[in-house]
Amino acid sequence: MDLHDTCWIKKYKEADIDAFYLKKGGVIAETLSDEVKLLLKARPAAAKDAKLVFKLSATAAKEAFTITHKNGIIRVTSGDEAGLLYGFYELLRRLHDKCDLNTRQAPANAIRMLDHWDNLDGTIERGYAGPSIFFEDGAFKTANDRVYDYARLLASVGINAVAINNVNVRRKEARLITRPLLDGVKEVAETFGRFGIKLFISINFASPIILGGLTTADPRSKAVIKWWKDTANDIFNEIPGFGGFVIKADSEGEPGPFAYGRDHADGANCIAGALLPHNALLIWRCFVYNCNQDWRDRKTDRARAAYDTFAPLDGKFLDNVALQVKNGPVDFQVREPASQLFGAIPNTNVILEFQVTQEYTGQQQHICYLAPMWKEILDFNTYSPSGKTKAAPILEIIGAKERNGVTGVSNIGSDYNWTGHKLAQANLYAFGRLCWAPNLTSEEILSQWIRQTFSLDVADEEILFNIMINSREVYEKYTAPLGVGWMVKPGHHYGPDVDGYEYDHWGTYHFADRNGIGVDRTGKTGTGFAITYFEPNASMYDNIGTCPDNLLLFFHHVPYAHILKSGKTVIQHIYDTHFEGYEDVLKMVSEWKKLAGKINDREYLNVLSRLEEQENCAKQWRDQINTYFYRKSGIPDENGRMIYP
Amino acid sequence: MDLHDTCWIKKYKEADIDAFYLKKGGVIAETLSDEVKLLLKARPAAAKDAKLVFKLSATAAKEAFTITHKNGIIRVTSGDEAGLLYGFYELLRRLHDKCDLNTRQAPANAIRMLDHWDNLDGTIERGYAGPSIFFEDGAFKTANDRVYDYARLLASVGINAVAINNVNVRRKEARLITRPLLDGVKEVAETFGRFGIKLFISINFASPIILGGLTTADPRSKAVIKWWKDTANDIFNEIPGFGGFVIKADSEGEPGPFAYGRDHADGANCIAGALLPHNALLIWRCFVYNCNQDWRDRKTDRARAAYDTFAPLDGKFLDNVALQVKNGPVDFQVREPASQLFGAIPNTNVILEFQVTQEYTGQQQHICYLAPMWKEILDFNTYSPSGKTKAAPILEIIGAKERNGVTGVSNIGSDYNWTGHKLAQANLYAFGRLCWAPNLTSEEILSQWIRQTFSLDVADEEILFNIMINSREVYEKYTAPLGVGWMVKPGHHYGPDVDGYEYDHWGTYHFADRNGIGVDRTGKTGTGFAITYFEPNASMYDNIGTCPDNLLLFFHHVPYAHILKSGKTVIQHIYDTHFEGYEDVLKMVSEWKKLAGKINDREYLNVLSRLEEQENCAKQWRDQINTYFYRKSGIPDENGRMIYP
Repeated sequence: MDLHDTCWIKKYKEADIDAFYLKKGGVIAETLSDEVKLLLKARPAAAKDAKLVFKLSATAAKEAFTITHKNGIIRVTSGDEAGLLYGFYELLRRLHDKCDLNTRQAPANAIRMLDHWDNLDGTIERGYAGPSIFFEDGAFKTANDRVYDYARLLASVGINAVAINNVNVRRKEARLITRPLLDGVKEVAETFGRFGIKLFISINFASPIILGGLTTADPRSKAVIKWWKDTANDIFNEIPGFGGFVIKADSEGEPGPFAYGRDHADGANCIAGALLPHNALLIWRCFVYNCNQDWRDRKTDRARAAYDTFAPLDGKFLDNVALQVKNGPVDFQVREPASQLFGAIPNTNVILEFQVTQEYTGQQQHICYLAPMWKEILDFNTYSPSGKTKAAPILEIIGAKERNGVTGVSNIGSDYNWTGHKLAQANLYAFGRLCWAPNLTSEEILSQWIRQTFSLDVADEEILFNIMINSREVYEKYTAPLGVGWMVKPGHHYGPDVDGYEYDHWGTYHFADRNGIGVDRTGKTGTGFAITYFEPNASMYDNIGTCPDNLLLFFHHVPYAHILKSGKTVIQHIYDTHFEGYEDVLKMVSEWKKLAGKINDREYLNVLSRLEEQENCAKQWRDQINTYFYRKSGIPDENGRMIYP
Repeated sequence: MDLHDTCWIKKYKEADIDAFYLKKGGVIAETLSDEVKLLLKARPAAAKDAKLVFKLSATAAKEAFTITHKNGIIRVTSGDEAGLLYGFYELLRRLHDKCDLNTRQAPANAIRMLDHWDNLDGTIERGYAGPSIFFEDGAFKTANDRVYDYARLLASVGINAVAINNVNVRRKEARLITRPLLDGVKEVAETFGRFGIKLFISINFASPIILGGLTTADPRSKAVIKWWKDTANDIFNEIPGFGGFVIKADSEGEPGPFAYGRDHADGANCIAGALLPHNALLIWRCFVYNCNQDWRDRKTDRARAAYDTFAPLDGKFLDNVALQVKNGPVDFQVREPASQLFGAIPNTNVILEFQVTQEYTGQQQHICYLAPMWKEILDFNTYSPSGKTKAAPILEIIGAKERNGVTGVSNIGSDYNWTGHKLAQANLYAFGRLCWAPNLTSEEILSQWIRQTFSLDVADEEILFNIMINSREVYEKYTAPLGVGWMVKPGHHYGPDVDGYEYDHWGTYHFADRNGIGVDRTGKTGTGFAITYFEPNASMYDNIGTCPDNLLLFFHHVPYAHILKSGKTVIQHIYDTHFEGYEDVLKMVSEWKKLAGKINDREYLNVLSRLEEQENCAKQWRDQINTYFYRKSGIPDENGRMIYP
């Protein structure tokens, strides 16, 4: 028996792949990586009616592939081995789905990455699936087959980059870029490399001090510049295919260039300069804001911070710097507008950051299929004048350059099934698929995942599909309403606490009083955040009449009796969605129970136990939110349902 | 130089003690403990005009003492060595204070104890003065002179019992009553024993399972009864003067008799039976309540819990059981009524539990001299029909029996000055003094402590006295109003969070809505808690017209416009006290600054840095409380001061 779940990959090995075989002595035999050979080796003698040919082509694009099925020969062609590998997995999907094999594909994004927030002690910041697969007790894990299987899993959905350590880089983790820890980095890099995945390390801006013994980390100091150069040279001597660095600077206590009176272009270019000769990338996070804000100050707006810091620096970064921008302007809430930075830095490389791990979206205790949320962001029209099209959707912006792309904060750990909640695997799968092909629908991806993961008949597949497809909407219903966000317990961010962050220093407020609620981010009376978007978005958000209901409280402070476009008042919307959301969860539970016996017990019970927690938690959310707003507004529910006084 | 502060003791050694000498070869020389001899040895040849004679008297009471000063001879007489020791320290105080030496004293309470919440790993639950002086890294500290000095410190204020480990007894700490940890217990017990202090250990009710390998801890199981007997015998073989056990059972997750369908008398008597042959005590905490309460349930009342559980068991406990009752019915808030259990269990030994460590009272960052609060409790008239007097004040009840008394949760740790905040030493001093002589006033005790701790002129002593004497009232002003309590950040309990516990499972709510606030604990419409007191207290609390202002919200839910006895509305009282409280802290800071140069720098700066934190924190309290209630009530401040919207 496997010691851990091989997820959707398992199906490939068990099923249709066995109907085909690798043509021995073909081009592929010389050029394919050992891994691909291994995967194809287990072919049966039974079905000899089709030949499978893998072919590198000097004229074909790298990473892209073509699959043709003609005269009993299936031919996968690509400009490089990675492309053959992606073609191979796409072929398996198509075989499994019994659909037309002919396809020609190229990834929509050059960088398709996962960020791990793993610490050397084995803990994972915002990890909900057990300890790290990479580290334990201050060192790399030994005899570790999880990394190999994980790399295969990622390659199967087209991921080509991974950062393995937390962006909050403590002193111990800072040492990952020097020996002896660098030996472990090398080993992991080689494992990922076999699957076409580049390895990145998160670094500490103060490394020249921490590791180099210098007295400064000033990015304009010659000694600092030299230290980064020497350090990079050492790394690339050891690991020639090393991907580069990820850095969180001047953010939530991490050191950065501000300490030296330098801006973030200075900070980034100093380190990027050291990577440039090696053609490696520096990924610089834009999650920079004042985390010691005063709740009494209603003019400072955290939602503006990344934009205000980075938009003026557009064009000032070296070619091998990419700015990593979170999907929304605040922090991975279940509903936020897209960040206004997309489209606002056209002369800078941009990586869009999603959160696959369910920090604010149910912590892998709640079912929350995130693809619909990610799709909304990818499809968001920035109307940036720099775009190729007038609308300039984010997917076009991030797909435009060689050093642009998408990253996601990983949701995996050492748990048997990788993600704690079995159904959270779908988010990892969907994330990879959307990086590759953002035009896939959430529905297509979910259907694929269900088919590849379980062995259900069509009716049962539909039951599961229906449980999951709207689960983000359900989660949104019973948690913070109308885009206001942040009504979670401080610190761990699980469960309701309406005022949990209201008087704190994190810049995350709802300003509810006895009359109304919401954050005034308009140009005239608010923080001006709304008008940092390009038109027509600016006016749409700025104007209470055109601002979408689901973001109303993100942009406007309104009375509880304000009438939404839906025709309901804000307060009645709050009550209705919270009653409905809980009812939806009850339905999820009863639907899931129909799958008893259809899914193996381990997985069935894994989900069932979490559904019970979700049910309890959703009830808490319903009652606390309803009571809180009833106590504040004094307005009763139109339908007379139970709101505790 | 001393490695740590010897507190008020230091003064004794330095000053007046040197004016007297021990008569060599007198009675005292044979009978006094080594410690007393040591303390008296450092006498000068200078002042030979008085002789000091210590005398044991077979007819005198134990622990009590008489000091006479006649014909150049100072004579201390007692029925036992401990009494001589107390007399000796009292003599030092009187010498230091230059007052009449003649006195006759007996302790008001038989048990005068401190409870440490120290864990074997060296952490202290609710400790604000550094790590444990007893433990580190899972074992007893070695080469540890702090315990000796601490024992001397406690003896100097009459403490005669100490429990050294946390009442939350984890598996590791459960092993303290068996070898090898018992060897450490023995050593510490001997050190304390030299100062007349009995050592207690907090135990885990499930010890027969954890340590004994039994399958049950059922207090009626013969095997369990035998296990406790054998274990007690082992302990007393090793440590003949061992004091006994402290236990927190069926409380906040600790195991207890409820699991076996037994009541707390069953539970206590099983263990106490094992201690009885050794004349040792089992101290059983009454802090038993449902810590998984539902905030939606407004009938269950945590304030009733200890009373409802223990009052019906009165008289069912063995003679060597003492029930430990917290001062208030909930949990060490800055303002609570006295627990209604006092006087309600006349046939049971009772130990009153105070919290010296400032968990809810500023965590040794804020100045909060607690003696006035403790005095209120001690002086509280229970009107128990069982009392000697009609009023039956708590101090009479707890002073009535040999196994009654007072305990306090310790505020000390390994910090240089023991208590983190230098001025928090006054609470330790006051606690001991009040255990011995509850009729001392808060003012007398504070004056003593100031004189014995600092060397200030009278005007400066007055400055410090005025900073401290009303500091609890100041703390109360800027925190939770009118006895409602609990508006603290969950978990660590520091700083404001009005709704922090409002929707939680701890049974601690304020029920504030847009119309009013407070907990209805009346007989007619509320939880009935008010009428669990004896008359006339029951009627006084139950009747909104007679309930004291400072406990109004503890007993009644009232509109914000309710007029207090002070003539102010509730809402205006909230605003006024919060503005005033902060102003009071500003005054504390400016007054303290007058003492610069008058107190050594280390101590001056220790207090100053904490005063700065207190100032910041009081401002947060002021603004968060005011804003919260302004947002809820919509009622502006009569005086138009700044309340953030």
